Amino acid sequence: MQKLDVAILGATGAVGQRFIQLLEGHPWFRVAEVIGSSRSAERPYGEAVNWVLDGNPPDSVANLTVKSLEAELTSPLVFSGLPKEPAEIREVELAAAGHVVCTNASANRMIEDVPLLLPETNADHTRLIDIQRDKRGWTSGALIANSNCTAMPVVMALSPLRQYGVTKLNVVSLQAISGAGYPGVASLDILDNIVPYVSGDEHKLETETLKMLGQFEGESIQWLDTIVSAACTRVPVVDGHIVNVSISLEAEPELDEIIAAWQEFRGPEPVPQLPSAPEQPLVYLSQVDRPQTRRDRNTGKGMATSIGRLRRCPLLGYKFVALSHNTIRGAAGGSILNAELLAVQGYLGTFQPAINAVTA
Amino acid sequence: MQKLDVAILGATGAVGQRFIQLLEGHPWFRVAEVIGSSRSAERPYGEAVNWVLDGNPPDSVANLTVKSLEAELTSPLVFSGLPKEPAEIREVELAAAGHVVCTNASANRMIEDVPLLLPETNADHTRLIDIQRDKRGWTSGALIANSNCTAMPVVMALSPLRQYGVTKLNVVSLQAISGAGYPGVASLDILDNIVPYVSGDEHKLETETLKMLGQFEGESIQWLDTIVSAACTRVPVVDGHIVNVSISLEAEPELDEIIAAWQEFRGPEPVPQLPSAPEQPLVYLSQVDRPQTRRDRNTGKGMATSIGRLRRCPLLGYKFVALSHNTIRGAAGGSILNAELLAVQGYLGTFQPAINAVTA
Amino acid sequence: MQKLDVAILGATGAVGQRFIQLLEGHPWFRVAEVIGSSRSAERPYGEAVNWVLDGNPPDSVANLTVKSLEAELTSPLVFSGLPKEPAEIREVELAAAGHVVCTNASANRMIEDVPLLLPETNADHTRLIDIQRDKRGWTSGALIANSNCTAMPVVMALSPLRQYGVTKLNVVSLQAISGAGYPGVASLDILDNIVPYVSGDEHKLETETLKMLGQFEGESIQWLDTIVSAACTRVPVVDGHIVNVSISLEAEPELDEIIAAWQEFRGPEPVPQLPSAPEQPLVYLSQVDRPQTRRDRNTGKGMATSIGRLRRCPLLGYKFVALSHNTIRGAAGGSILNAELLAVQGYLGTFQPAINAVTA
Amino acid sequence: MQKLDVAILGATGAVGQRFIQLLEGHPWFRVAEVIGSSRSAERPYGEAVNWVLDGNPPDSVANLTVKSLEAELTSPLVFSGLPKEPAEIREVELAAAGHVVCTNASANRMIEDVPLLLPETNADHTRLIDIQRDKRGWTSGALIANSNCTAMPVVMALSPLRQYGVTKLNVVSLQAISGAGYPGVASLDILDNIVPYVSGDEHKLETETLKMLGQFEGESIQWLDTIVSAACTRVPVVDGHIVNVSISLEAEPELDEIIAAWQEFRGPEPVPQLPSAPEQPLVYLSQVDRPQTRRDRNTGKGMATSIGRLRRCPLLGYKFVALSHNTIRGAAGGSILNAELLAVQGYLGTFQPAINAVTA
Repeated sequence: MQKLDVAILGATGAVGQRFIQLLEGHPWFRVAEVIGSSRSAERPYGEAVNWVLDGNPPDSVANLTVKSLEAELTSPLVFSGLPKEPAEIREVELAAAGHVVCTNASANRMIEDVPLLLPETNADHTRLIDIQRDKRGWTSGALIANSNCTAMPVVMALSPLRQYGVTKLNVVSLQAISGAGYPGVASLDILDNIVPYVSGDEHKLETETLKMLGQFEGESIQWLDTIVSAACTRVPVVDGHIVNVSISLEAEPELDEIIAAWQEFRGPEPVPQLPSAPEQPLVYLSQVDRPQTRRDRNTGKGMATSIGRLRRCPLLGYKFVALSHNTIRGAAGGSILNAELLAVQGYLGTFQPAINAVTA
Repeated sequence: MQKLDVAILGATGAVGQRFIQLLEGHPWFRVAEVIGSSRSAERPYGEAVNWVLDGNPPDSVANLTVKSLEAELTSPLVFSGLPKEPAEIREVELAAAGHVVCTNASANRMIEDVPLLLPETNADHTRLIDIQRDKRGWTSGALIANSNCTAMPVVMALSPLRQYGVTKLNVVSLQAISGAGYPGVASLDILDNIVPYVSGDEHKLETETLKMLGQFEGESIQWLDTIVSAACTRVPVVDGHIVNVSISLEAEPELDEIIAAWQEFRGPEPVPQLPSAPEQPLVYLSQVDRPQTRRDRNTGKGMATSIGRLRRCPLLGYKFVALSHNTIRGAAGGSILNAELLAVQGYLGTFQPAINAVTA
Repeated sequence: MQKLDVAILGATGAVGQRFIQLLEGHPWFRVAEVIGSSRSAERPYGEAVNWVLDGNPPDSVANLTVKSLEAELTSPLVFSGLPKEPAEIREVELAAAGHVVCTNASANRMIEDVPLLLPETNADHTRLIDIQRDKRGWTSGALIANSNCTAMPVVMALSPLRQYGVTKLNVVSLQAISGAGYPGVASLDILDNIVPYVSGDEHKLETETLKMLGQFEGESIQWLDTIVSAACTRVPVVDGHIVNVSISLEAEPELDEIIAAWQEFRGPEPVPQLPSAPEQPLVYLSQVDRPQTRRDRNTGKGMATSIGRLRRCPLLGYKFVALSHNTIRGAAGGSILNAELLAVQGYLGTFQPAINAVTA
Repeated sequence: MQKLDVAILGATGAVGQRFIQLLEGHPWFRVAEVIGSSRSAERPYGEAVNWVLDGNPPDSVANLTVKSLEAELTSPLVFSGLPKEPAEIREVELAAAGHVVCTNASANRMIEDVPLLLPETNADHTRLIDIQRDKRGWTSGALIANSNCTAMPVVMALSPLRQYGVTKLNVVSLQAISGAGYPGVASLDILDNIVPYVSGDEHKLETETLKMLGQFEGESIQWLDTIVSAACTRVPVVDGHIVNVSISLEAEPELDEIIAAWQEFRGPEPVPQLPSAPEQPLVYLSQVDRPQTRRDRNTGKGMATSIGRLRRCPLLGYKFVALSHNTIRGAAGGSILNAELLAVQGYLGTFQPAINAVTA
């Protein structure tokens, strides 16, 4: 099978680096273009990048010449790790020009016809692409977003609980420094310190969560009807966002029932077959003190969500703890899984991987 | 004025060390006896202790010979930093033997006639001492506890809000490693890690909080009638516990009103005059990202509680963040302030410091 | 090929856990017996262990019943992650009873007929096993040690420099907390702190280094004749020991020559073919600020040594920085590589893996 | 006594903030002017500054209006916490305009007629001010520097050892993040990480150290004649630089002799009388694992240097560990002590504090 060329917007940034790291050896996609700021443009990627992940950038990408943000692209598929400002306009332009853009930026997430895609949860939201194309007159292009990295574990954990009627939701997060990109959080602000504030994230949690858990009603997504309150904190860990969640469930299931719902949860077909999909999207840990950030963030190669400590909450009914890897599943890895779903669903033009290639 | 001799139980432990550090140069009290485990007994304190605070133990205490837990004590006032097990029986024995015991241990906190004292909040709870003495036939002895170090900032912040009717309370804590004593948390368990569990603390928050905020009804304390839910996490900071608090208030005051109530809050007389009392017990910070653990834990020499981020909560009505120094106000410093109150109220026998000595 | 049964001594400890983690899926060896303290004995491993590595113990091992230290063992190959005291006698007993014991403990390292094995450096030191067997009357048994985890990167980096005549060596280490095992370093001792002392390690660096770099002279190892000085510090990182090394080289090579010697260095045959051998044992990084602990410790799956910053030293001639993963190459992984070498060299009885099985 | 007005250059930066914090309540000096970048100019200091130290800026300074770097100043004494570039020219201009400038910047340190002042070590180097004024035609102005924050503890520790003839010196540093200013080190670069490189510091250690320990020969300073080698590393601690030092001493004193020399070391008169001078400049700790960064950095209010672990070095003769607070004694506090010396020596015009005011 010929791999599909992909372009990375914001390739020298922290999210862009994760895209490149995770796409190394990907069975379907191949990094063909890297797009950076004017400071990086025209230089070999390996020289332009200040690689902040482990090791060094893969040789195959290190030798690519960085293109400027305005450059015309040839890759049908574009992953965006752009900051909010440049993302807003450029992502739409590229989609209009015929590229399928899978973005991790927050800029266009809440636009009504942009799917906020989490394959296990709302694979059917890709139908918004048809609506998007119709409405905007696009043929091959599309714009698909993945969510805020803190909303993500909440949505994953709630996915199999929607059946019980989630009426109230309280979230208090403990977020890793990598969530702020690079250079991001100054070390003097976080070493031996907690910052009880993450700009913008409480609002994102209180809105994106509901859109992702929503359902089609006619041609648009009807948000989940739940009252949400979020408080976000920054803590001195490298990767992995923990959320303390309290919820009210109308059906009042037993604790065992909820745990079983989590353990048995799989996304709808073909999601479990996708190359980046974790074998088990939700892993419940029975130990009293888990999940822990460092020890559990890499579960399922960083693509699974770990849950633990389900117990009664005197106020809302139930409380538990969930954890996801914020720069893998919560960012670049999430976008890649989204694109894999689009490929199988036929949204990437003529590129359609044989589903049995998946298990290779 | 002749200073009052005090004894420190558990003097070589982490809390015991804080007692010794904070009592150095105290205007009323003087460390005369240090009590340790059998391993330390009969050795000079300076040799027996593995000093884990900054610098070295004060010379005046370093030369004291450590006494065993069974030793008879001569000091009228005893501070206890004992672990739960040995505390349970020994503290009561010493009180029965005529000592006033101010304990930081959890063992006897919830006994009905033991005041769980926080002077600014419930100075009148010391009346339980009279009941205690009557009931148990004690004359000079008494047993007084201070609370769990995570419940403490919650109680402080709620003290001036009781007037509005606190009906619901949700707390998610981010607790420092020093809260677990020494050696306490293994570094492999907390470096680049979050542990979403602190043994016993959720239950303490859900009970001690209500007792402390309670009021006398006849001869006993009627707990505050509030539904509480707590989730406790351990985070990699040295000192300082942060709590994310959500509350419902019957009277629905404006945010400004609440902030004013905090800023103007002072304990009842003579609390503001006590040597260890902070000038302002509750300090509201207007910056959007405060209080922060490292930057605000030492406010008021570690005896004040910092509060910030008061805002509306879609679920409960109000939410905010509070911070206290867990081993100063939340442990040793809290016990010392309690003993100062007892001294002025006349519970320390003939020792009664002139109130104008306070300002010296 | 039938895999060889191996037993893990100290299986519930931190090093024991690494053995189990690294042996999961090993092409030649299979964990058949796990040996723990009396507290763990007779319990399923999965229950007895407090797993401190990422995730959970592999299922295949979790279900094994922990044996006591005195139990007779059936596995021909034994890996020891015992503390010093129990290691000293038990390891010799097991070797005498016919087991090949590959130990990570320090207890028996400096015994004259025990090879202190680092395959790329001194694969021929295994000849000591013949001497050991002759002298002690052992037939199938043997005792082989790997070195202290801080000496290891120093020896690796010096291996290809022996040709230039190393006359002086100064080492200052920055060692990770995992080097002290579990619970090991208390978090209060290392968070926002440096401890400029690691018990015993300076002596080990000043002796083990020379034995490992030594050469056979008749029937024993002649230590390298170099003056060594070491200073060891403990720093707040999870894994990875950095050493700042200064050396004098008699032949006074150019810097480029040294870098080439490192880059081209491979162990003697069959070392590069062994399953756990890194493709490139020494990786020189050209960036001015590398190697860095977190970013480079996993190079070569934690089995390679990263080197950087080679420059002139006004005092000794040359200085540079080296880094190894202390619990992989510096402990369990190093022992496993040693055992692989022994297998191919025919020291594991009739078990002799086909060398082309290696690449599988 | 009327306090002397002082101006702070770079007042909103990390070093500038320390100047302001340490000058709060100073017996001789009063912050009258704060100078910032164009972004901060004309705004109240309290609004312009992003205060990164504990708590909040003192009220007295918070209300001052920030002046631009080009503004004319009225304060006779100027403390500079400027970055290197702007410092180079502006500091000389201000000295030429009649201000005594005590700078913490590296820009002008190595100019021949600029004293690199450390009062306990080289109080007589202030004679360079006379030479400076003569040569440059300045009357009241002067430019005085303090050293790099890592060279400082080395120089302090060597000061009383010059009598033994220091012929060789090797230094390996472990430097705190605050040494890089704010925002300085990105948290992703240092959490669970060591960076074995600090731009420029090795060269500074190898030169500034020798100038500071030098002696007047005619009209200029003859550098100490010692071979120096330095390696610098950045470690995840907030404040406090540790140095591992090895030295050769011609006179080969006993270890006890050296320890006594450290313990008895005091600066020449009037240094011990200065308000910011620590009672004991060098504190030797006998514990085997001290000094430790967090526990000992505040010794002598952050103005003393802690030393420990003196032992024989097989290579150079002696080795030990030293620690200083890099942003107090190693930066702002050092400059303030320098200015106090200048005041008593009569270099601050008519301002000459009564020496008995010192003890107040």
